[in-house]
Amino acid sequence: MQRLNVALIGQGFMGRTHSNAWSQVGKFFDVPVRPVMHTLFGQEAENPRAFADNWGWRNASTDWQAVVTSPEIDLVDIATPNFMHMRPALEAIAAGKPCSCEKPLAGALDDARAMAQAARSAGVKTFVWFNYRRCPAVALAHRLVKEGRLGAIRHVRAVYLQDWADESVPLAWRFEKEWAGSGAHGDLNAHLVDMTRFVTGDEITEVAGAIAETFIKRRKRMTGVVAGGITEGLQSTDEQGDVTVDDTVLFLARFAGGAVASYEAARQATGNQNGNRFELNGTKGSLRFNFERMNELEFYDATLPRAVQGWTNLMCTHGADHPYVAHWWPDAHLIGYEHGFVNEAYDICRVLAGQEPVVPIPDFEDAYQTQRVLEAALISAQQGRPVKIDEVK
Amino acid sequence: MQRLNVALIGQGFMGRTHSNAWSQVGKFFDVPVRPVMHTLFGQEAENPRAFADNWGWRNASTDWQAVVTSPEIDLVDIATPNFMHMRPALEAIAAGKPCSCEKPLAGALDDARAMAQAARSAGVKTFVWFNYRRCPAVALAHRLVKEGRLGAIRHVRAVYLQDWADESVPLAWRFEKEWAGSGAHGDLNAHLVDMTRFVTGDEITEVAGAIAETFIKRRKRMTGVVAGGITEGLQSTDEQGDVTVDDTVLFLARFAGGAVASYEAARQATGNQNGNRFELNGTKGSLRFNFERMNELEFYDATLPRAVQGWTNLMCTHGADHPYVAHWWPDAHLIGYEHGFVNEAYDICRVLAGQEPVVPIPDFEDAYQTQRVLEAALISAQQGRPVKIDEVK
Amino acid sequence: MQRLNVALIGQGFMGRTHSNAWSQVGKFFDVPVRPVMHTLFGQEAENPRAFADNWGWRNASTDWQAVVTSPEIDLVDIATPNFMHMRPALEAIAAGKPCSCEKPLAGALDDARAMAQAARSAGVKTFVWFNYRRCPAVALAHRLVKEGRLGAIRHVRAVYLQDWADESVPLAWRFEKEWAGSGAHGDLNAHLVDMTRFVTGDEITEVAGAIAETFIKRRKRMTGVVAGGITEGLQSTDEQGDVTVDDTVLFLARFAGGAVASYEAARQATGNQNGNRFELNGTKGSLRFNFERMNELEFYDATLPRAVQGWTNLMCTHGADHPYVAHWWPDAHLIGYEHGFVNEAYDICRVLAGQEPVVPIPDFEDAYQTQRVLEAALISAQQGRPVKIDEVK
Amino acid sequence: MQRLNVALIGQGFMGRTHSNAWSQVGKFFDVPVRPVMHTLFGQEAENPRAFADNWGWRNASTDWQAVVTSPEIDLVDIATPNFMHMRPALEAIAAGKPCSCEKPLAGALDDARAMAQAARSAGVKTFVWFNYRRCPAVALAHRLVKEGRLGAIRHVRAVYLQDWADESVPLAWRFEKEWAGSGAHGDLNAHLVDMTRFVTGDEITEVAGAIAETFIKRRKRMTGVVAGGITEGLQSTDEQGDVTVDDTVLFLARFAGGAVASYEAARQATGNQNGNRFELNGTKGSLRFNFERMNELEFYDATLPRAVQGWTNLMCTHGADHPYVAHWWPDAHLIGYEHGFVNEAYDICRVLAGQEPVVPIPDFEDAYQTQRVLEAALISAQQGRPVKIDEVK
Repeated sequence: MQRLNVALIGQGFMGRTHSNAWSQVGKFFDVPVRPVMHTLFGQEAENPRAFADNWGWRNASTDWQAVVTSPEIDLVDIATPNFMHMRPALEAIAAGKPCSCEKPLAGALDDARAMAQAARSAGVKTFVWFNYRRCPAVALAHRLVKEGRLGAIRHVRAVYLQDWADESVPLAWRFEKEWAGSGAHGDLNAHLVDMTRFVTGDEITEVAGAIAETFIKRRKRMTGVVAGGITEGLQSTDEQGDVTVDDTVLFLARFAGGAVASYEAARQATGNQNGNRFELNGTKGSLRFNFERMNELEFYDATLPRAVQGWTNLMCTHGADHPYVAHWWPDAHLIGYEHGFVNEAYDICRVLAGQEPVVPIPDFEDAYQTQRVLEAALISAQQGRPVKIDEVK
Repeated sequence: MQRLNVALIGQGFMGRTHSNAWSQVGKFFDVPVRPVMHTLFGQEAENPRAFADNWGWRNASTDWQAVVTSPEIDLVDIATPNFMHMRPALEAIAAGKPCSCEKPLAGALDDARAMAQAARSAGVKTFVWFNYRRCPAVALAHRLVKEGRLGAIRHVRAVYLQDWADESVPLAWRFEKEWAGSGAHGDLNAHLVDMTRFVTGDEITEVAGAIAETFIKRRKRMTGVVAGGITEGLQSTDEQGDVTVDDTVLFLARFAGGAVASYEAARQATGNQNGNRFELNGTKGSLRFNFERMNELEFYDATLPRAVQGWTNLMCTHGADHPYVAHWWPDAHLIGYEHGFVNEAYDICRVLAGQEPVVPIPDFEDAYQTQRVLEAALISAQQGRPVKIDEVK
Repeated sequence: MQRLNVALIGQGFMGRTHSNAWSQVGKFFDVPVRPVMHTLFGQEAENPRAFADNWGWRNASTDWQAVVTSPEIDLVDIATPNFMHMRPALEAIAAGKPCSCEKPLAGALDDARAMAQAARSAGVKTFVWFNYRRCPAVALAHRLVKEGRLGAIRHVRAVYLQDWADESVPLAWRFEKEWAGSGAHGDLNAHLVDMTRFVTGDEITEVAGAIAETFIKRRKRMTGVVAGGITEGLQSTDEQGDVTVDDTVLFLARFAGGAVASYEAARQATGNQNGNRFELNGTKGSLRFNFERMNELEFYDATLPRAVQGWTNLMCTHGADHPYVAHWWPDAHLIGYEHGFVNEAYDICRVLAGQEPVVPIPDFEDAYQTQRVLEAALISAQQGRPVKIDEVK
Repeated sequence: MQRLNVALIGQGFMGRTHSNAWSQVGKFFDVPVRPVMHTLFGQEAENPRAFADNWGWRNASTDWQAVVTSPEIDLVDIATPNFMHMRPALEAIAAGKPCSCEKPLAGALDDARAMAQAARSAGVKTFVWFNYRRCPAVALAHRLVKEGRLGAIRHVRAVYLQDWADESVPLAWRFEKEWAGSGAHGDLNAHLVDMTRFVTGDEITEVAGAIAETFIKRRKRMTGVVAGGITEGLQSTDEQGDVTVDDTVLFLARFAGGAVASYEAARQATGNQNGNRFELNGTKGSLRFNFERMNELEFYDATLPRAVQGWTNLMCTHGADHPYVAHWWPDAHLIGYEHGFVNEAYDICRVLAGQEPVVPIPDFEDAYQTQRVLEAALISAQQGRPVKIDEVK
């Protein structure tokens, strides 16, 4: 079998999930190419050697350019904070290499556009880790819509609610525009926009109105290297710094097919630790998903006799009938957060071997489309007016 | 329209629900006979005149025998504590009058047998207020089973869990065998046995094993008239008395059709205020009911394509398709506890007018069958052996 | 006890709920004035005499002006379609009589303003039947916020989703601007705005953006008198007419206290029969309500030790501790839709007797404030811009 | 760091979960000894070399005795069908080696007793993979009970309901007494008995009554090697064979501390794919667990003010406060079925390094106690009488 030498750029929270994905995929899936955990890039201060040893990367490096351009590498996988996505991606593309990148595609729209254009020009295969698409329940939602089970979709409502960011949390990179691009918006609404585009198979054409708000405007500065939302154990100082990103963004939108939609991302929605949820209402049926019960999908089939219509809780764990799960455990032996990443690693292998993925993977072009919607929402919030997506280039 | 002069015997908690039922039925239902709230019987100390005025009973009396035998009365409705069911019932039957009685049919099996025999001999119409049958969700469950939607039923599991009876509750009539017959068993398992017989359409043939337990063996004696589980406001004394009924009874059983079953009634199941629940598993589907969400019925249809099989939450409030609710409010404008009694009053009117009830009402004979099962469970608990229902006469 | 002669104007769906409320209130509550169901007004074609007899109104009339101005009437209760609220209300106020009116206060903002001004000038007591405030779970939510259990509220999200209005439903009065004023917006968002103002104790200051959409633009005309959302049994013609109100309105808003908010009303949200829901997130805790499980309130107490923090499902049926329910049934013996109206009838009696209501009742002034918010949302949707509530007079 | 050379005996469904556990534990946990995946034993026909390569076992062998007694092996891990547990366990113990064994301890009580006695005599450390103990929600339940949060426990009710075993499923080893010992009872009730003993910290003293039933008495014989409940892909023949184990076992029991209990295991409980559930009711609080929502634990705290008492849904994913999860992902980024095994591998490493496990691991002695309860239930079902656990040696 052909091997696929993977280089991982980044070793924070996302470096961990990607490492796990590359480590697990070959054990559970019958992969068409054999991924090899070839090289990890990390910054000196992060001790990439220890990380590499723990996760099984053969080599560790502190020179990302050397890694990305090395002839031994077959796939460049980027898992750094948002502002650091573009440079390694462009170099990989320039070297003609497939590139998979964490979401959102970039911290800034300009970066995202440049990445999409470069990929298009070079004709290399690209992938973005919008992991929730490969949660079996979400992939099933996509299939049910595609089969016409919902009829015409009229309503999309999506929220991604977290509550980790109260006053006690210090000024991590996620709170600074320079590193993160935006706050809850790019972190969480990015997932919602991707998921709802994916599941509906439709495109957002306009943001009708929006609110962006930062509730906590100053936080304690930190010392030391910071990565990911996990700030426990890091040291805060007494000095305060400005939060330069949003805590919450809400927006209303319209889809090309006529649906109206609402979105909300929040980091101080007390009681919601990871409430990534959507509901779609169509003329023939409806769907509800909540990541906090990620193995379940609620389906309302309005074509059944009315006496037995209701919200049906689909436990999406039946190997013969639900996406991905045949590779995992028996029925209702649940899978968790990391499995979406392993499933994506599998689909990346499939695409690189010339096969169809189980469900579509967003490439840079597709993720750039998501980024344009996010940008439109920010413009709408700032300017107090509807913004067509076509305005945002 | 023909009138139906009702006499109510008893004015405790159940007297209140029956009064409400007779008062509401004609407003919401197109009744085939017109119920008239003719006479209330209560004990002198209970002030029946005030109760009658509040609820709209035309007359109040403290002489139950005069009431029951009065030629003006068309239906004798009994809502007293269990030990007081038999005497007015037998007199009513002797007078050739239809009689409706609160559940359980009686505190003692001997009473129940006598009541069933008297009704059979006299050929009068009798009714027992197993109100949960007429909760729309339970009536729908009955219909779905009857239509064969569950296939052959293999499992019945039913619990009725309450938590009102901690150490602070004084020695109300419900804790004394003399007045109540049994404790949680007759109060709660009676409902479960009736409901599961009703919904499955099958009969219990054997109790395979049982446990009866009284956790709190002594309670403070009370002063004053006591009725119903509502003991707030009543006065306790410092003197302790013996609890002579069970706090909990669990038993295992077999149905004629091959199903195995478990039952549990409890009064100290902390956190369960009125957890009247059952689940049935059949070869083609399953059903779950929980009174604490009484407008809902969960249905699992194993004949649907496997990809979309799941527990469907039926909101049983759609007038055109669900029993009784067309007479109430629009879809998902919920009904509550008392509506089952109003629905039963309607069905009693239908039967007395020679029509079919919406779903079957248990008569004394049917309720006696339930009582035999309860008795078998107590014998099994005492003697540590399986008990066939046929043994219990 | 002092009597309160009530006149009811209207006998549609709401006439039914108000009749039930006036009929039940004295039976379950110890009222400080004794409501008498004195006179019903209905149109000739509706046969008010039959309605009055069914529900126990002593008199029936087809002359609303005579009823409203009759010296025998102590309270004018208006339950007509929206466009007919103003005239009887103004006459009642002119006659110095207390007046209770169905929600929304009026179909048009001008009407609402006139009603509020008249009430203010005349100094008469007015009430609006925003019934959900008196659902015990919502009243409890109000209390918990007032006690400071949520801290500062940052997020309000509210949806009221129904699905009764598909293509098969003919052109009832609710679909015509002339009679209804607006569609889902005035019918459903009115409840959400009232409830969230009530529960938060805060005021909306701005609508930041909005969408209004009519999915089904033409419907079959009907023959006969039409009232309420219950269109079954009415006759449609083959002729089509224009729908002149919205099917759905979504809007984003800001509260004076700093919270951001989203609202959505919909009539084609398949699978949601009566999904009247809100969630509030505060610095110390959160609340969730869903009318489809109206006896329950979810509370997240972020001041508990983290290990045992979670969403707590409060069954709001404990007489000693939850509003209104002591007057109804034992714990977890659920109440339903109509009980909120009976509870409101009780509170109206209390206020008219000079007592405090259990929780505040909106008067015309307060309901006019809700109406201004609704108007601001419509302007925002039409003009594509943020609208301050202060702009709307 | 000291290494721990592990030998795995068996490569079926459980061989897969154990392999994953040994592979993942070092990546996520800071282990006190370094587990090395040294040797896999499988039968020739199973191709152990391929399995070993896939999962990362260094060596593969078809001679289990050589493996178990090899001086290079530090831990013998047994994951074979039940009837094959005893022989390798006894050899390992005889060789003075720690031994971890899948549950139930053995197919037959005699085997279990011999294993427990051998371990006791030899003084070697043993472990049984009752994996659900290490599900964070179950481990938290154990802690909360231990802290006294439930007070005195009065009710235990536990069911483990599956539905995979309909008529279409052929005669796999799990349906034959010779290989499996028992059916749903040893497979599923074993977990319930272990979990409830673990969480309550109390011992079952008596089985009061029981039912054992086999609904499907004959099934199609299979060809080929069969392991685990996953029978898809295996070939059935037309020949029928007898099912010699139970499909369902229900029993009632008493705990030393006074609680009454019910248990049920089922394989045809349509709609329940993996419904491993328990509820405990104590004088101060209650707990509910359902493996189908394994990241959640419901807690009712009856010591809170009554107005805010309710079932609290604890999302057991908060690293700082909930067992094991700090080693996995951020809050509410769920874990799945296999994580309990990884957590157990960690605790085995801790114990072998002389540390305390996060929560207690059952050894052979402890698992033998569970087996005695299971045996008592079977005797009770067969003999129709209560059976004291002390009778069962």
